[in-house]
Amino acid sequence: MIEYSVYTIDKVLYEGIMGKKRRTAIEPTRSENYPKWYQEVIKAADLAENSDVRGSMVIKPWGYSIWENIHDVLDEMFKDTGHKNAYFPLFIPKSFFEKEAEHVEGFAKECAIVTHSRLEPDGKGGLKPASPLAEELIVRPTSETIIGASFAKWVQSYRDLPLLINQWANVVRWEMRTRLFLRTAEFLWQEGHTAHATSKEAIEETEKMLEVYAEFSENTLAIPVIKGFKTASERFPGAVETYCIEAMMQDKKALQAGTSHYLGQKFAKASGIKYQSKEGTEEYAWTTSWGVSTRLIGALIMTHSDDDGLVLPPKIAPSHVVFIPIYKTDEEKEFVLNFINPIISDLKKLRYHDRKVRVELDDRDMSGGERGWYWVKKGIPLRVEIGKRDIEKNSLFVGRRDQSKKFGIDKEKFLEQFLDILDEIQDSIFKKALEFREENSKTINKKEKFYKHFTPKNSKQPEIHGGFVYSHWCGSAECESKIKEELKVTIRAIPLDAKDEEGRCIYCGKESHKKVLFAKSY
Amino acid sequence: MIEYSVYTIDKVLYEGIMGKKRRTAIEPTRSENYPKWYQEVIKAADLAENSDVRGSMVIKPWGYSIWENIHDVLDEMFKDTGHKNAYFPLFIPKSFFEKEAEHVEGFAKECAIVTHSRLEPDGKGGLKPASPLAEELIVRPTSETIIGASFAKWVQSYRDLPLLINQWANVVRWEMRTRLFLRTAEFLWQEGHTAHATSKEAIEETEKMLEVYAEFSENTLAIPVIKGFKTASERFPGAVETYCIEAMMQDKKALQAGTSHYLGQKFAKASGIKYQSKEGTEEYAWTTSWGVSTRLIGALIMTHSDDDGLVLPPKIAPSHVVFIPIYKTDEEKEFVLNFINPIISDLKKLRYHDRKVRVELDDRDMSGGERGWYWVKKGIPLRVEIGKRDIEKNSLFVGRRDQSKKFGIDKEKFLEQFLDILDEIQDSIFKKALEFREENSKTINKKEKFYKHFTPKNSKQPEIHGGFVYSHWCGSAECESKIKEELKVTIRAIPLDAKDEEGRCIYCGKESHKKVLFAKSY
Repeated sequence: MIEYSVYTIDKVLYEGIMGKKRRTAIEPTRSENYPKWYQEVIKAADLAENSDVRGSMVIKPWGYSIWENIHDVLDEMFKDTGHKNAYFPLFIPKSFFEKEAEHVEGFAKECAIVTHSRLEPDGKGGLKPASPLAEELIVRPTSETIIGASFAKWVQSYRDLPLLINQWANVVRWEMRTRLFLRTAEFLWQEGHTAHATSKEAIEETEKMLEVYAEFSENTLAIPVIKGFKTASERFPGAVETYCIEAMMQDKKALQAGTSHYLGQKFAKASGIKYQSKEGTEEYAWTTSWGVSTRLIGALIMTHSDDDGLVLPPKIAPSHVVFIPIYKTDEEKEFVLNFINPIISDLKKLRYHDRKVRVELDDRDMSGGERGWYWVKKGIPLRVEIGKRDIEKNSLFVGRRDQSKKFGIDKEKFLEQFLDILDEIQDSIFKKALEFREENSKTINKKEKFYKHFTPKNSKQPEIHGGFVYSHWCGSAECESKIKEELKVTIRAIPLDAKDEEGRCIYCGKESHKKVLFAKSY
Repeated sequence: MIEYSVYTIDKVLYEGIMGKKRRTAIEPTRSENYPKWYQEVIKAADLAENSDVRGSMVIKPWGYSIWENIHDVLDEMFKDTGHKNAYFPLFIPKSFFEKEAEHVEGFAKECAIVTHSRLEPDGKGGLKPASPLAEELIVRPTSETIIGASFAKWVQSYRDLPLLINQWANVVRWEMRTRLFLRTAEFLWQEGHTAHATSKEAIEETEKMLEVYAEFSENTLAIPVIKGFKTASERFPGAVETYCIEAMMQDKKALQAGTSHYLGQKFAKASGIKYQSKEGTEEYAWTTSWGVSTRLIGALIMTHSDDDGLVLPPKIAPSHVVFIPIYKTDEEKEFVLNFINPIISDLKKLRYHDRKVRVELDDRDMSGGERGWYWVKKGIPLRVEIGKRDIEKNSLFVGRRDQSKKFGIDKEKFLEQFLDILDEIQDSIFKKALEFREENSKTINKKEKFYKHFTPKNSKQPEIHGGFVYSHWCGSAECESKIKEELKVTIRAIPLDAKDEEGRCIYCGKESHKKVLFAKSY
């Protein structure tokens, strides 16, 4: 534990700045209207906005910077596990897409289709598409089929395996109902695609990458996750097995934060990925694919943020600390900045978990309170306010985003403890999320109780109820779909660590050997 | 200068491995067939290949890694000059695109157009596009109009300016004749978009970013460039002024390596980017845009590579050094690897120009010569062969990609001088390219001489002739287009440093005040 003198700031001080009627920086609050609160947090932190293109968002600098950090940390994890990046075409010929029947069925409704090239005058002062393409092109919703075509060329012999490739790219899924970060017509993601000589190796890869996602989610994003399999009805179209990580949002719904698919030989057969074995026989390869997307930013927002706005774990925050000089005159401003600038230089020399420490200086001509709230809403882990009086005491006045109180600390101590304080924040944010999930997870063995649990109690907060429920399931798709139909509750995962135990299916009462994870979901 | 004992290896040694009939690793050589040589270098280095989608390439790991390095170095330069990254929609509504008349005219022929969503059965066992979109969407060939729509929302007051944004993205231009890296239907690039309160500031930004590109090109890619303006006919569609950097390839043609556009108020007016000035008046902003693309990889290949394959400047190479253990038995292999592994660990701790030193170990079961040639063709700056005998002498046997000879060096000296050797290679590659350009640049004042200079002398090498010619031009579009028509020679740039001097137009003989840069080009 770090020791420092703490003195609490009355929240009333802030309220004065925000206007008498506002109790929190974000209105409505989570308990008042959760979906609207989510939108307002994004707006207040200036993360993203809807564009004029149906369902496509604009990711603004603060939001994009979170994605850059996700990219950088994950990319290193992928490379450390032997993967290499490459880039494949945005467009997929329709005939490629048709090769795997389940796959095309799963994505047909969400395709955006390029049918023409060239614009020409339409005779009414506008332009119209001019040249029909010989074959329609699908804007990639995922790249199994187009990458498969390359793999078929690259893989000849067992010596070419395993082939471990990743792509960072944009993809398009023509979703009807969109929501910033969670579900957008275009989004950014990474998609890993690998080919192996044996089924065993491909399954090991699928599990290894799920582990990478879980580790990243918990250690970097501070989002606790449940690792599991999907049921057949929730699998990726064409997959033999879909592994997933599931996180709990603050409205107690589940959000799928990453998936890793074992594709067996289905896509290898569709694309013709064959190799000559050591024994000289011709074999189909075994493939996998796995991905996470800008959806993770939605998960990040909904896991940690509070009624004052975004809360960011230091390991993923675009910046770690903001300095807010407090001054009345130009002379005072110069005096304060002269004190701050060397501190900023010292901090910038540090590395936090092997990444640069990022520092903001906000010396705008606005009150300290206004600037403070600006950064609270943006979720920056640390705010440092410094005025003349603080400098006389050689002291900094520090606010942690994970705490409502602020504290004074000696300049030298702050520099010395800076990285530890960030780690403390990272840990406290994770623990809070984990506690929330544990408080809202339970085992239910009675159907009636299950149904009651998933029925909104408070009509004013229809969005916030339920949670994670572990119940027995007989394995039938019928029971699964009945529950979905009646309650909008689905099986989020068959947890990897689910014990073998005897029980009765929560729906039909028939024999069951495992409890599965039920929840409402995004 | 670094001193070490050098002993030359007869090239015959290599030839034995490559087969008696081959004199070089790449066939044909540059002088035999330059365009084919280019393709073969890409193939031998495994950088990229054509895909099954018309005009779209697959960028393979070694090629993509070059792009990642371009990204990382440039991105830091952009951030150091105050720019922030963001992400905008891939699709541009046709009506947005139509807003700027010159712009749409310039890109109309190259558009790929999304007209439908959803696929449905076509009744013949296949699928067909199902739902026509209310408005056609253009797959972005460049993003001025879609980013302009966001800027119009973001800019209200002079306090919001300057707005300095960059985007890393894929773009699509439906080119009819494509060529790996140089001209592809889809390519990767960055596009900077900025808005300013005054014309002066916008021009300063345009020039600053040209300077960033020039510095990056020369210092990182080791490609010397001429900075200049484009003539009206070569400007970006809709720009008031296009600045460019032009590089000379080894066939003496020019390649435009980056452009920076001053857009005046044209796009601000088309998109409605207005701000309230300090004085309270409503004004249109002044905008710029600037970009470089995966085309730079084509420039890199054609500037430095030789008849043995790719040559990469260390600052951009995916890996800096490969270790090739030479062994006959498993025991010997283990012995050699035990010697190599600590060297690799030591090297990996170094940073070369603030980036990680990247090391390859090639212990494949192939002859040392075969493995050596494999890495020569991939352009890795340093190859280190180590066998039992070398270890006994505590010596490494090192090949530099920029030299044909190899040298022995003490292990400790190698580690000590490693970063300096890389810098030496970087410098020597740049100097070689600069010398080549200077040798092939001249001033021509007589029309007849100009025409003779740009006419192929050797029918066997029609591709390699000409070079950079500085000649007077009267400024008329007619003279410019006549020369283009008759010789396929264009004005590549009006150099920024062109002196004011009196002369006669190389075409019409009328008065001229400046020499401009003529060349054939990509």
